[in-house]
Amino acid sequence: MFCSRFTLSLVLLCSSFGLFAQKSASISSPNSAISLQINVAENGNVTYQITYKKQIIVEPSLLGFSLKRPEIQLNKFQLIDFETSTFDETWKPVWGEVSSIRNNYKALKIKLKDKTKADNLVNVIFRVFDDGVGFRYEFPQESAIKHFIVKDELTQFNLAGNHKTFWIPGDYDTNEYLYNTTKLSEIDAIKAANKETDIALKSVIGINTVQTPLMMKTANGIYINIHEAALVNYPAMNLTLDKTTFTFTSHLVPDAVGNKAYLQTPFQTPWRTIIVSDKAADILASKTILNLNEPSKITDVSWIKPQKFIGMWWEMHVGKATWEKASGKHGANTENVKTYIDFASKHGFDGVLVEGWNEGWEDWFGNWKENVFDFVTPYSDYNIEELTAYAKQKGVRLIMHHETSGSATNYERHFDKAFKFMQDHHINTVKTGYVGRIIPRGEHHDSQWMVNHYQRVAEKAAEYKIMVEAHEPVHPTGLHRTYPNWLANEAARGNEFNNAPNLGLVPEHETILPFTRLMGGPMDYTPGFFHFQLNQYDASRKTRVKTTLAKQLALYVTVYSPLQMAGDFPENFNQHLDAFHFIKDVPVDWDDTKILEAEPADYITIARKQKGKENWFLGAITDENGRKSTIKLDFLDENAKYEATIYKDAANADWQTNPEAYKIEKRVVSNNDIIELSLAKGGGCAISFVKL
Amino acid sequence: MFCSRFTLSLVLLCSSFGLFAQKSASISSPNSAISLQINVAENGNVTYQITYKKQIIVEPSLLGFSLKRPEIQLNKFQLIDFETSTFDETWKPVWGEVSSIRNNYKALKIKLKDKTKADNLVNVIFRVFDDGVGFRYEFPQESAIKHFIVKDELTQFNLAGNHKTFWIPGDYDTNEYLYNTTKLSEIDAIKAANKETDIALKSVIGINTVQTPLMMKTANGIYINIHEAALVNYPAMNLTLDKTTFTFTSHLVPDAVGNKAYLQTPFQTPWRTIIVSDKAADILASKTILNLNEPSKITDVSWIKPQKFIGMWWEMHVGKATWEKASGKHGANTENVKTYIDFASKHGFDGVLVEGWNEGWEDWFGNWKENVFDFVTPYSDYNIEELTAYAKQKGVRLIMHHETSGSATNYERHFDKAFKFMQDHHINTVKTGYVGRIIPRGEHHDSQWMVNHYQRVAEKAAEYKIMVEAHEPVHPTGLHRTYPNWLANEAARGNEFNNAPNLGLVPEHETILPFTRLMGGPMDYTPGFFHFQLNQYDASRKTRVKTTLAKQLALYVTVYSPLQMAGDFPENFNQHLDAFHFIKDVPVDWDDTKILEAEPADYITIARKQKGKENWFLGAITDENGRKSTIKLDFLDENAKYEATIYKDAANADWQTNPEAYKIEKRVVSNNDIIELSLAKGGGCAISFVKL
Repeated sequence: MFCSRFTLSLVLLCSSFGLFAQKSASISSPNSAISLQINVAENGNVTYQITYKKQIIVEPSLLGFSLKRPEIQLNKFQLIDFETSTFDETWKPVWGEVSSIRNNYKALKIKLKDKTKADNLVNVIFRVFDDGVGFRYEFPQESAIKHFIVKDELTQFNLAGNHKTFWIPGDYDTNEYLYNTTKLSEIDAIKAANKETDIALKSVIGINTVQTPLMMKTANGIYINIHEAALVNYPAMNLTLDKTTFTFTSHLVPDAVGNKAYLQTPFQTPWRTIIVSDKAADILASKTILNLNEPSKITDVSWIKPQKFIGMWWEMHVGKATWEKASGKHGANTENVKTYIDFASKHGFDGVLVEGWNEGWEDWFGNWKENVFDFVTPYSDYNIEELTAYAKQKGVRLIMHHETSGSATNYERHFDKAFKFMQDHHINTVKTGYVGRIIPRGEHHDSQWMVNHYQRVAEKAAEYKIMVEAHEPVHPTGLHRTYPNWLANEAARGNEFNNAPNLGLVPEHETILPFTRLMGGPMDYTPGFFHFQLNQYDASRKTRVKTTLAKQLALYVTVYSPLQMAGDFPENFNQHLDAFHFIKDVPVDWDDTKILEAEPADYITIARKQKGKENWFLGAITDENGRKSTIKLDFLDENAKYEATIYKDAANADWQTNPEAYKIEKRVVSNNDIIELSLAKGGGCAISFVKL
Repeated sequence: MFCSRFTLSLVLLCSSFGLFAQKSASISSPNSAISLQINVAENGNVTYQITYKKQIIVEPSLLGFSLKRPEIQLNKFQLIDFETSTFDETWKPVWGEVSSIRNNYKALKIKLKDKTKADNLVNVIFRVFDDGVGFRYEFPQESAIKHFIVKDELTQFNLAGNHKTFWIPGDYDTNEYLYNTTKLSEIDAIKAANKETDIALKSVIGINTVQTPLMMKTANGIYINIHEAALVNYPAMNLTLDKTTFTFTSHLVPDAVGNKAYLQTPFQTPWRTIIVSDKAADILASKTILNLNEPSKITDVSWIKPQKFIGMWWEMHVGKATWEKASGKHGANTENVKTYIDFASKHGFDGVLVEGWNEGWEDWFGNWKENVFDFVTPYSDYNIEELTAYAKQKGVRLIMHHETSGSATNYERHFDKAFKFMQDHHINTVKTGYVGRIIPRGEHHDSQWMVNHYQRVAEKAAEYKIMVEAHEPVHPTGLHRTYPNWLANEAARGNEFNNAPNLGLVPEHETILPFTRLMGGPMDYTPGFFHFQLNQYDASRKTRVKTTLAKQLALYVTVYSPLQMAGDFPENFNQHLDAFHFIKDVPVDWDDTKILEAEPADYITIARKQKGKENWFLGAITDENGRKSTIKLDFLDENAKYEATIYKDAANADWQTNPEAYKIEKRVVSNNDIIELSLAKGGGCAISFVKL
């Protein structure tokens, strides 16, 4: 790291009356596109302001805290000192969308003392990147405050206009909402939440409170994303809007007694992130959240592998089978699972997820019951020894399922033995689940205790060389850099909501996800549904998949994850094995990624280069509108030929009337070529480019 | 079990108006001293009444519940059916005050249905013993209610007069109060709690709420004790008094969100116990609470052994050493602990407790901090490998200390590894501690989650063949019958409070404890202080031990426990090795016990016969008044001679002015003899009778 003071301008203004004294400091990003100004006013208010290409993006916005213990307001400060530095490093993720990532920023650390008690110290650290700003509070060891309880974080984001906003209701327990697109002034989180009858457990915060990642677009075409990075030992941040000023204030998720966080100096909060660009594609390409996270804490990463898998799961959703054994149509029995292993082995998949394998599903949900599963007791018709041997012989691994039913205390009591049990059965990936009200009772999915819990699970799993993906956890914040065994999360409305009877999904959903939820990290979205009317096993079912088949394929590229499920089950895949070929071929780890086109709630086209290979894969999706687009193939190597296999919507395809109409074409292309995409309503296109 | 209906009289009274119909049933104890009458009124109120020797002890008192989910009142019932039975069995405890226990009662089970929803079923099971009544609610499997949340238990205890009462304030987190002796009408729990500045964490319930075991004495000399038995998966019961009617109502300890218990049918509540006698001694001799608990769930009990131990503990209390290492006077260093092992070995003790052995004590208390101890990391100056080997060679075992600082979640995450660590170091007894606010935050020491936690620890310990004693837990309720490895608990104001600077202890304290706290089970009271002015290592200290030395000896008999500490440290014991001989000799397991004299808050004299031996031991204690008493030795075997060694207060002894004045006399006695006891103010007498 290179430290300097030359980038800072410190201005001390004293009026002739001696009453007005304020200090300000400013710093710019390496390419000067973004600048940050800090102001410490005479009355002690500390504000920051962010400018992008000379336009104010975040107007002067207050910083500070309200503490419960000691019971003080920490929002009137004197500036003691400041430090600046620049940083420029390129690092290689264990897996990812690109094989190397540049982390380049200018930093400013301001050292503040509490105006009312001078030995209470708070620092604020700002990092200004070319595509955004991250800042965090630091409570240094030297402060008089040692142990403290946060009542409220007072951080504000004072926006410069009534922006178009892609939002979901602020909530302590779920992030599985459909996205709403409105102006800031039109946000009504209560109304939006009231429509969400598909979500079993909601803890809505208030009419003006929304979740992050929050995506916005200004009237003059600037894209702004607010989120947080490195959410460690702290509750998740929601944002509460003042509609008169378009100012958001941080709203942290409380614990059982209403406190927000129990902390001890030295402590650094998560980073508050503001990513800005006049190109939507730059938002998707941003690595700022990852860069703000710490490097891997796992030194030997040789056992961590991106994976594709199928699973005993969608059968239960559509009513073909059940999780519980008592129903008489138990999915996870030995013979059924062997057919999955056979299919996975035949098509080169890494894993087979099995849900409903363990005792407890007869009474697992909705009663805030603490001791449901023990994570080591298979149902009597599930011969895990036999299946372990069978899978091994077929070159496939089982993937474990640990549904906790929200009882995190019970999971923590068992997780050592549960992970040991996995090790003993050659299983090194676990899907965890947190359906239902949290135990410890009164805690929330997104409160500090649970944020720590998810991390404990990732750390404990790493001790056993186990990879994790969590369902129903807090929103991700780039911690997969620090814990690369934490491959993915759900933490959003997944493809499974196609089967939800009420709001379900809408075709634009996957065009918003990358701008919102995916800003924090990979999602186990479970693409790959090949059967669209979901009444195959239950004629009364009115649900259906709200994409075309080609779009289901394209999602493997547009929804990035190192852990991708082929969501449907073998019987349905076997109906379209030609299309299934794309899922077989598409990798889950990449050397490079190009965001070719993107507009939230409208469309996304992404090309990615396979890790360690010369092949490229392209995914293009649209919303409810059909779309034509011309894609230049200039991302391909010069002077090379590629066999392009194009999986596209047929001319008469339509997500509502004809979703299964697709065409597969092959063509030899080079980097001078273009491809004309024609996406159906709710459609997509997937292309593999194999270097010849 | 023998079932019959012949003991029940069922009366159906119908008035000529057809408006009045009530049903009543009555049952008597095997010896008919106690009778119980149940009444189901026309309006659905169900009451019970208890009579002792024809005097009403508990006037008609309501039964019922208020549920949170489903949100109903369960207190208006119709009687469906009833069953009666008698039971008479004699069983042998793994350890105890007597070698065999008779469990003899008549039982009545009434089956009730909710008047407002007939498929909501509740049964109440009554057992009537010769010395009291126990009753519990049963929520049967057949009920329409499956999962339910208890808002309040509505059980009442409607007493017949303004009795003299020995009480401590109702509290969710501590039972370490001094006892108050007042009339019922004079109870003021707030005032009493406000005086208790020695207790760090109090959660007082209200002016009229007190804890159980609650001891009372009526104006005409009847002793009544109210408590609970078999507190499993349920919060502890406090009692709230209506001073106009002298009616107590159950007040259960809430969880973080104010709920009392999360339950599922079939479920049985703990037993509510009312023990009654016109002899105070009978209260102490009662085995009803034990009898109401389930037999041992541990089948192989060969590894469970009553024990005497010393420990690195009081040194820290009196300022000779510290728990934390950073102070520079760390008690638990290898050399210091070797001197304890040497002393224990020389005097035939089983164990050496070591507190402050593990990292974390520099910042362990008062900040609701979750991750303090890991229970497996010794301080660098504590060589546990060396000490394990040293202790083994000396025929002594170390006793482990697991202070959780109230962070039960953290303990549960570690307890498997912690118990394995003990096993690896030849340690099979653990003293747990719960100093501080509970985590899960919002839970209380006495709430359902923590009640389950203490049991989980006992069960988990049993898996590792480890014995447990818990400090700062919920009040015991006889569960040591079911978990005989759960040897003892603190759960009251212990001998350590002699060192508390404010209220501290009073001489009557130990004459009340057996009538209150000890009704639920053994206590690690840590008797055996031999040094009385506690300024030995800190001249500023004003505290002192509030007994005579002879009384410290007598406590080994009057305060029953299978796990007895010699509380002081070797240096102080060495000043009085002649008196220490009694502590060496006194056993911790008994074939028989005779309560020779007893009056709460005045005096207790108990004789006990050593397990498997012919020797007897007697302890006599008094309150702040000196006392003379003549004890018949008719409990000794006929036709045998015993050498009695009498450890008594010297003529000029006085707890305040001359506590260390004792005399030791030897005498040969037989069962025709008497011994004249002369106890000093705050004094006692201890006698060993060795059969010749």
